[in-house]
Amino acid sequence: MNSALFTWPVRVYYEDTDAQGVVYYANYFRFTERARTEWLRSLGVDQSRMLDESRRIFVVTSVAADFVMPAHFNDELIVTAALGRLARASFDIEQRVHRESLEGTLLFRCSVRVALLDADKLKPQRIPKDLFEG
Amino acid sequence: MNSALFTWPVRVYYEDTDAQGVVYYANYFRFTERARTEWLRSLGVDQSRMLDESRRIFVVTSVAADFVMPAHFNDELIVTAALGRLARASFDIEQRVHRESLEGTLLFRCSVRVALLDADKLKPQRIPKDLFEG
Amino acid sequence: MNSALFTWPVRVYYEDTDAQGVVYYANYFRFTERARTEWLRSLGVDQSRMLDESRRIFVVTSVAADFVMPAHFNDELIVTAALGRLARASFDIEQRVHRESLEGTLLFRCSVRVALLDADKLKPQRIPKDLFEG
Amino acid sequence: MNSALFTWPVRVYYEDTDAQGVVYYANYFRFTERARTEWLRSLGVDQSRMLDESRRIFVVTSVAADFVMPAHFNDELIVTAALGRLARASFDIEQRVHRESLEGTLLFRCSVRVALLDADKLKPQRIPKDLFEG
Repeated sequence: MNSALFTWPVRVYYEDTDAQGVVYYANYFRFTERARTEWLRSLGVDQSRMLDESRRIFVVTSVAADFVMPAHFNDELIVTAALGRLARASFDIEQRVHRESLEGTLLFRCSVRVALLDADKLKPQRIPKDLFEG
Repeated sequence: MNSALFTWPVRVYYEDTDAQGVVYYANYFRFTERARTEWLRSLGVDQSRMLDESRRIFVVTSVAADFVMPAHFNDELIVTAALGRLARASFDIEQRVHRESLEGTLLFRCSVRVALLDADKLKPQRIPKDLFEG
Repeated sequence: MNSALFTWPVRVYYEDTDAQGVVYYANYFRFTERARTEWLRSLGVDQSRMLDESRRIFVVTSVAADFVMPAHFNDELIVTAALGRLARASFDIEQRVHRESLEGTLLFRCSVRVALLDADKLKPQRIPKDLFEG
Repeated sequence: MNSALFTWPVRVYYEDTDAQGVVYYANYFRFTERARTEWLRSLGVDQSRMLDESRRIFVVTSVAADFVMPAHFNDELIVTAALGRLARASFDIEQRVHRESLEGTLLFRCSVRVALLDADKLKPQRIPKDLFEG
């Protein structure tokens, strides 16, 4: 199983910040989803083909997150993604956001449970066996 | 033709602001779309039924906008909508955003061209004759 | 202590949805923040005065959330807020999102930890004793 | 004057799309602002230093935009930025969004007027003479 650490850079623009001068809390979930999408792409998963060809979608079913330190306008962030628990119809992704590099200040961390569903009936689907295998 | 002024209140939350301490410029287009949706609803147009039953969607094809004065966190805004030019397959909506009331400071104004399209082929559709008639 | 259930209506607009046809997962955190803001306002807390006059801000430090069922474009939602654990410098808010009414389908639930901070040094501040007292 | 074409890639994620299955119209203004920010950075302008050190901000004062064709989830976009009219206290930026490359389908184009303001009094400031000179 490939549980290597995936990383994805995110630049903070004005759109991401709020009047407290920092990244708006809900937007960390946009950043972490970008990293999850790119992580899946790196594993060969094309979510738009999945939807068009087999009507299957990945859906977030739960999150638990800690907002450790604020990110600011113009910050360059590194978002990580690593596979956690893998079950029959869902898996957990462990993610962190650091400033500048993996050695930089930890700003945010979360655990995200993702299920594979049929796009029409929203029924759970079995995760393909080889999804996370090199 | 009913070109009376429609108004819709919008409260500014942190999600709408940016690190300059004011409403992020693109978010005025979210506010004006909320008012357009409610204005269409007040005219008896249910966009989700339109899509489900006749596969027709309203689509913005152009905007021209002036950012006059900034709105701030916690401001109560009034967004207006009034029909401008009405053509065969599109219409223009004239919109403004004021602080607190129609007599309050003008913050934003825009003209928005909306087309009626077939949702699948994106072909222009004729605007129903009675859409804007009381 | 006032732990009565606060409710706030939210209409789903196109801005809130994504190409899966449902509300984008991070946007539930925008909806719940609107309800928290209005709940605080109902308790007499004006967050913009707090910031301007005493340089204090409320900050989300952690969330745990379950995405139970999807909300769709045009849905009318009811968002709840109720005080959970109250500590010296933070408190928990328990929130739910239902479709149409409190009796409607449960779509989302979360527990949100909020800290009171000094806006400049980000140091925890003691929660005023009378904040949640009728 | 350096009016060469600046380009910046943008990937479309679920956060950018809406229930019509395409990029939500207001989000093109997020994409074009990312390109403007990076274009300014390429000219040596650091907007966070500008704010911290000289209390000056760039502010959009007007936009005119055409939504030509829709972008979809997962599309790779190219956003352009080029200097248009340059005045004493403002300048115009001409921007386009293409699918995949400059030769790809034109999806969006806009003209954006940007003013340089004092961040506190919001008074217009003279654009530095050498801002757009190589």
